[in-house]
Amino acid sequence: MNFTKKLVGKHGQKDWDADATLGFAKAEAQTLLDKNVRRLAELQSRLYAEGQRALLIILQGMDASGKDGTIAHVMSGVNPQSCRVTSFKAPTTEELAHDFLWRIHKAVPARGEIGIFNRSHYEDVLIARVRKLVPKKVWAQRYAQINAFEALLAANGVQILKFFLHISKDEQRDRLQSRLDDPLKNWKFNPGDLAERKLWKDYQRAYADAVHKCNTKHAPWFVVPANKKWFRNLAVAAIIVETLEKLDPQFPKPVADLSKIVVR
Amino acid sequence: MNFTKKLVGKHGQKDWDADATLGFAKAEAQTLLDKNVRRLAELQSRLYAEGQRALLIILQGMDASGKDGTIAHVMSGVNPQSCRVTSFKAPTTEELAHDFLWRIHKAVPARGEIGIFNRSHYEDVLIARVRKLVPKKVWAQRYAQINAFEALLAANGVQILKFFLHISKDEQRDRLQSRLDDPLKNWKFNPGDLAERKLWKDYQRAYADAVHKCNTKHAPWFVVPANKKWFRNLAVAAIIVETLEKLDPQFPKPVADLSKIVVR
Repeated sequence: MNFTKKLVGKHGQKDWDADATLGFAKAEAQTLLDKNVRRLAELQSRLYAEGQRALLIILQGMDASGKDGTIAHVMSGVNPQSCRVTSFKAPTTEELAHDFLWRIHKAVPARGEIGIFNRSHYEDVLIARVRKLVPKKVWAQRYAQINAFEALLAANGVQILKFFLHISKDEQRDRLQSRLDDPLKNWKFNPGDLAERKLWKDYQRAYADAVHKCNTKHAPWFVVPANKKWFRNLAVAAIIVETLEKLDPQFPKPVADLSKIVVR
Repeated sequence: MNFTKKLVGKHGQKDWDADATLGFAKAEAQTLLDKNVRRLAELQSRLYAEGQRALLIILQGMDASGKDGTIAHVMSGVNPQSCRVTSFKAPTTEELAHDFLWRIHKAVPARGEIGIFNRSHYEDVLIARVRKLVPKKVWAQRYAQINAFEALLAANGVQILKFFLHISKDEQRDRLQSRLDDPLKNWKFNPGDLAERKLWKDYQRAYADAVHKCNTKHAPWFVVPANKKWFRNLAVAAIIVETLEKLDPQFPKPVADLSKIVVR
């Protein structure tokens, strides 16, 4: 199956199914995930050796949609030396004193690296819009600014993949409740999540706009059905592997004039 | 076996054996490494959940001593979300305009994180001394400055482990030669490594001084016999696991007043 084609954001589509598994059963998905995780490690070492292009993976989703879990399960086999995760929280005073892409630009992966954004500049058209942190006039022009920014990165060798981990409102309830009920998960609970949950519909509208306005060829959005964690992990891993296989990074060419050197 | 006690730098000792395996055979070491890699992933997730303390792992060693390989094999199971590798290269113009610890301080891991330094501030008493990049008056006072800096970190919850990956001069020759002979390894070859190799004795003296002058209780040096890659990996993994087990990070206490909240 080509996950890239199946899950890329379709223009205008809004009734995404959070339960979909594309016909996969759990055991089969786990086997395939393991295979993809191993393949990812191989491809990463080539990307690093080549040193010409970078991969930027953006994870977005409502609270408890599984951004952290995806990183833990999909990226657990990669070499941390050339993989950098940046978690974007509420902006600091210094960050707010700059345009919204300033802190994002600083965190873009270097050539040869895989960068993972846990939340991203899309928060600036999600929470910033829903919570009215800035006037509509400001957030409305950000879609075009984001597209221009991502085009700059793409033109400089950064392959961008954007994942919207899509869960249903019921699934979020169950997951937040388990953070309350399970003492070992209490530390993950943030009372602020309940306030955001009340704005569910506004957030879904904002997500749909972000996906539709910023779904470009060089920086596609994938809407990943994420109610089933095992399917979410498989889908993200598969799309990353499919993308890297298409990039097909190569070890640098052997250097002819090295062949006569003898180390003493 | 307690690797921490076995391999911690002994005062005054200079005749380190790069071939030592402490009685381990390769197959046995591999099994034990796998076990430690899995255990490390568990302990890391606790360290992250606790969010109070950090682990800083410093890797030093001659060219081809296996710093990259150690990261690849020992840290391959960790969650990249709370693990950050910083590779220190020749300082930039901006870095040189500050004291030598300025760029290091910026890269120190946050509470809950594991930070890995691939090379470090020790280069400033290694290459800076051997290559006379600064006068003796300057590098000679750095040992005390490093000790004060590391004491500051330790007092703020950063556990520091420093590994000198110790290979023999013959082993380095074989490894550098294989980078020349194997076309797939050509990209790892740096002609500058041959020039450094000629200063082998000077570097060994500088390493011995760094280990002896900066081997503190809160930031110990470990001299890891690294001619056998499988032993090197096991030793580093075991010492990290032993250290984290001693730290014994705990999930934060359940929060009593959460127990009555129901998510709707």
